[in-house]
Amino acid sequence: MKSPISDANLEKLAAVSINTGLNLKKGQPLVITAPLNAQPLVRKLTEQAYKAGASLVTTIYTDEADTLARYQYGSDESFDVAPGWLFEGLGKAFTDGAARLAVAASNPMLLAEMDADKVSRANKAQSIAAKPAMQPIVTFQTNWNIISYPHVEWAKLVFPNVSEDEAMQKLADAILKISRVDGPDPVAAWAEHDEALHKRADWLNEQNFSALKYTGPGTDLTLGLADGHKWVGGSKVARNGVRCIANIPTEEVFTTPHKDRVDGTVSATKPLSYNGTLIENISVRFEHGRIVESSATKGESVLKKVLETDEGAARLGEVALVPHSSPISQSGLLFYNTLYDENAACHIALGQCYSECFDNAIKTDPEKVKASGGNESLIHIDWMIGSDKIDIDGIKQDGSTVPVFRKGEWAS
Amino acid sequence: MKSPISDANLEKLAAVSINTGLNLKKGQPLVITAPLNAQPLVRKLTEQAYKAGASLVTTIYTDEADTLARYQYGSDESFDVAPGWLFEGLGKAFTDGAARLAVAASNPMLLAEMDADKVSRANKAQSIAAKPAMQPIVTFQTNWNIISYPHVEWAKLVFPNVSEDEAMQKLADAILKISRVDGPDPVAAWAEHDEALHKRADWLNEQNFSALKYTGPGTDLTLGLADGHKWVGGSKVARNGVRCIANIPTEEVFTTPHKDRVDGTVSATKPLSYNGTLIENISVRFEHGRIVESSATKGESVLKKVLETDEGAARLGEVALVPHSSPISQSGLLFYNTLYDENAACHIALGQCYSECFDNAIKTDPEKVKASGGNESLIHIDWMIGSDKIDIDGIKQDGSTVPVFRKGEWAS
Repeated sequence: MKSPISDANLEKLAAVSINTGLNLKKGQPLVITAPLNAQPLVRKLTEQAYKAGASLVTTIYTDEADTLARYQYGSDESFDVAPGWLFEGLGKAFTDGAARLAVAASNPMLLAEMDADKVSRANKAQSIAAKPAMQPIVTFQTNWNIISYPHVEWAKLVFPNVSEDEAMQKLADAILKISRVDGPDPVAAWAEHDEALHKRADWLNEQNFSALKYTGPGTDLTLGLADGHKWVGGSKVARNGVRCIANIPTEEVFTTPHKDRVDGTVSATKPLSYNGTLIENISVRFEHGRIVESSATKGESVLKKVLETDEGAARLGEVALVPHSSPISQSGLLFYNTLYDENAACHIALGQCYSECFDNAIKTDPEKVKASGGNESLIHIDWMIGSDKIDIDGIKQDGSTVPVFRKGEWAS
Repeated sequence: MKSPISDANLEKLAAVSINTGLNLKKGQPLVITAPLNAQPLVRKLTEQAYKAGASLVTTIYTDEADTLARYQYGSDESFDVAPGWLFEGLGKAFTDGAARLAVAASNPMLLAEMDADKVSRANKAQSIAAKPAMQPIVTFQTNWNIISYPHVEWAKLVFPNVSEDEAMQKLADAILKISRVDGPDPVAAWAEHDEALHKRADWLNEQNFSALKYTGPGTDLTLGLADGHKWVGGSKVARNGVRCIANIPTEEVFTTPHKDRVDGTVSATKPLSYNGTLIENISVRFEHGRIVESSATKGESVLKKVLETDEGAARLGEVALVPHSSPISQSGLLFYNTLYDENAACHIALGQCYSECFDNAIKTDPEKVKASGGNESLIHIDWMIGSDKIDIDGIKQDGSTVPVFRKGEWAS
């Protein structure tokens, strides 16, 4: 398989993922999950991991052709089934100390033409079965990292007006630039960027806001923060003691909203790509944390289906701040890929919260997370509400306000 | 990835594997293990499985490049590690009812240049870790099948005197022919072949021999059979009630020797390809079931290492009868692949026995299998002792003898 990224750049990307992202420890096993088309990157990641002292690298590949075969030939019952044994095994690997690396490189429109009910059932079965594998990840029991690799269908979607080869080249270049591996010293670039994100998170934690107030076109939202919430961004120390940067790229500082304390109206500033459906111009109204009205100019029925997934699907699990000047936002591109799009702008996420975004006394106890306002759901879907027209104020515990964002940029 | 087998033939091969080999049931999950180069076949297998009503097809791919990266860059400690979590998961899948399909399509010489000690340690760690996955297979708790697919390095080894493309084409043709999918009706061909194998096994079971006596050049061996042994061949009904043909191709009828009752000398009639080492002109002498002398004109040190793996490695776990006129034998080729070479000639296997080759009263109880003379080991290595110069007599319980093979063919 020929890679659209040169061997030297592939090696840089892999090295940043293994050494800066995962910070893989000598003697640590590594489990990679990846689509087959990412094989050239996986081979480099495997090399870099062994060079870093990995005890064993195991890759679980998925093949989009096999996914499509299921929709084409599978029986109706097949769409409620998921490989629980595999996710349980992955969960055991992570709990026993393996690092986790996910390569995100899929065709965002793969299932666009498929039966929406089957897609939704298959996703639900998968989400439920995947819990044992995701639990050690969302609770940071081990060091983990997600990184991207070009996919031809993805490239054509992001760059629709050029040839296939050119689109792949442009996407490859964008991935390298946005992943901060295009400079002479990616490790130093990441260290500097990480420090900047930590400074922002520290400032927000010092302020200890009880809520954020968003104002902008179509948006007038008061978003209460969970009790004992903690802002995080950049690297963090997983519970196995390893400092890792989970997402490459990452531009956000984020925390947990209170699931019952969100009120007002908010409008999306970018389309949401969800399983091959582009949901455009989302606008929703919250009452006591729950979405009570929702609309979209395109894909509204899919949006409403998503909100009905379970009780927590119409409540928020994450709030993230990203300046409009972030490299992804400045690229002006819609990537149809959460890892990229969520780092383009301020966003909120429907569904499951991250226990990591709580004080130490809370985050290790699921009951305390819940009691502090942490939302629970099978889904976690980010959508963009930031732009250069958004102002955000922090509301302190005494009711006073502090400017946080002005016209999409940090106020100070 | 371009396949050396035409789309139509690939579909036939996949259909025989799914429908005749596995006999996959409606609603049954399927787990495939395959090397990455077998992707074109895996895609067809997945399609055929969904057409047959599979509830879910999950493929675990392995990549030879990743295996090599470990030998190239891995730390010394890495060679004692195996992905136990994955094998435990696979074991759970099979125990819970999933069918198992293994695609055997690797480069037999992949590790030929690697450090023998590391290869041996990695194999041992893998064998131990794989037990939970192999146990439901060797005890036929579920229906399973192994099938082959060309690999360029494998093709060059089998056909060293032609171009790479021609070698691949020849290997592809050989696989189709030997797998009996080259005719107009592979399903009927397999039904007929299966019936013939069952007739041979039935006759051997009626005779109820206590031992077989092998005579030929360099061979004078009395091979006692296990108490309550059963000859099997062709399709069998797995414990989940599904009749399957585990190996494609299969030409053998086989049973379990008694681990303590093998005496005399036997010479191999073909080289044994073991992890990239070709062991040539093996000759061994048994006393009370154990190999007490061994020699080989090439690869002798590897042979001796294998025999030292554990207590059961120097004893027999399988004896199989294959006529010299079998299609694989007639091809005159050495395939460097057990699935093919073991079906070319009469053979014996060092190591672990199959509990399936015992009466029903014994086979479900590991203690009874052991007490009846069933051998235990981490290894199971077949080697060929058949040729057109071998005679085999069956020794009945009363000491009388019955001709079984004459000059490498069934005596009657």
